[in-house]
Amino acid sequence: MSQQPKSKNITKISTHVTRQDRENMLGQKGVTLWFTGLSGSGKSTVAIEVDRVLTERGVACTVLDGDNVRHGLNSDLGFSPEDRNENIRRIGEVAKLFTEAGVINLTAFISPYREDRDRNRKIQGNGDFVEVFVDAPLAVCEARDTKGLYKKARAGIIPEFTGISAPYEAPDKAEIVLNTDGESVEQSAAQVVAYLEEQGYVKQ
Amino acid sequence: MSQQPKSKNITKISTHVTRQDRENMLGQKGVTLWFTGLSGSGKSTVAIEVDRVLTERGVACTVLDGDNVRHGLNSDLGFSPEDRNENIRRIGEVAKLFTEAGVINLTAFISPYREDRDRNRKIQGNGDFVEVFVDAPLAVCEARDTKGLYKKARAGIIPEFTGISAPYEAPDKAEIVLNTDGESVEQSAAQVVAYLEEQGYVKQ
Repeated sequence: MSQQPKSKNITKISTHVTRQDRENMLGQKGVTLWFTGLSGSGKSTVAIEVDRVLTERGVACTVLDGDNVRHGLNSDLGFSPEDRNENIRRIGEVAKLFTEAGVINLTAFISPYREDRDRNRKIQGNGDFVEVFVDAPLAVCEARDTKGLYKKARAGIIPEFTGISAPYEAPDKAEIVLNTDGESVEQSAAQVVAYLEEQGYVKQ
Repeated sequence: MSQQPKSKNITKISTHVTRQDRENMLGQKGVTLWFTGLSGSGKSTVAIEVDRVLTERGVACTVLDGDNVRHGLNSDLGFSPEDRNENIRRIGEVAKLFTEAGVINLTAFISPYREDRDRNRKIQGNGDFVEVFVDAPLAVCEARDTKGLYKKARAGIIPEFTGISAPYEAPDKAEIVLNTDGESVEQSAAQVVAYLEEQGYVKQ
């Protein structure tokens, strides 16, 4: 990635705009930061903080999470195994579209199955897909219980709840592992931003 | 929209990044340019030219078309009425995500049914959805027959082909109408860009 000063008017494009053209114009590289972890681990919180830090620096970003995906694109999907699978597949495809547009997109979904995450990694290819494991112990997440979901899961009101009555398959090749139990949101976010700088996705 | 000089580092954001923050940072307003028209009318060609002109000017854009949607997000969909409907619905939802990210996104799909287009307009709200009617006569599109599809449709090899054996419902409230029979690709694209400038989506 070019280390020249950021400029938005230097690109001369012949016919079709390529991904490289978009990245040159924006002064960044498109990538999907795929946050995965238990409910309450801090996925959204850290993603939102990274988004804030990067946007303040002039980086084009977006966050995909339950709020804007489950009520829109995936409003036709429920929580059966097939629907959960399709949910993650579509998010992966949308993330790919953002990545190809040169945007840094942060997805924050529990996405408990390794197979689903690996499929999305494969769709995008290495380098375009960065897995961020938000690694907080179940006991910590349950104690936080931000949304009161663990209580309902323990009471059997919510069936097949990840970590309680359904498995969470921890990543075995995450590019970034965040310990949100031991560090602040700002520290976790800084770790992600440092990775993006080191790997040349954003300028230092 | 602010007419101040474009700057990518002036935004101070408290917690969540808002759409307004993203637009301020990018110096543009997010919008969906929904191109609709017969096969061969020039939807993709004009959208690609608008994308080129805007990207050269430093505007963050993307194009959604059959190439990147039918093979990815909507690869599970066929051509039944239900699947066509779902195809357009999903594209509308993805367009909304790009719009909310502050990006100018251009969609190029025949999208023959008024109801489908109006639904997507409603999902986004007026101002975020700009319908671009690429208005070329059927005879002209058929004479161009860029992809050889009209020939196959006339021979009955492709059933339910828009304009031949399936209806095309022309927009009755398109914000922009392009006459690609009477004007060049560059002229059509300039008309779209002029609209975006006049309405304050991009700076002049």
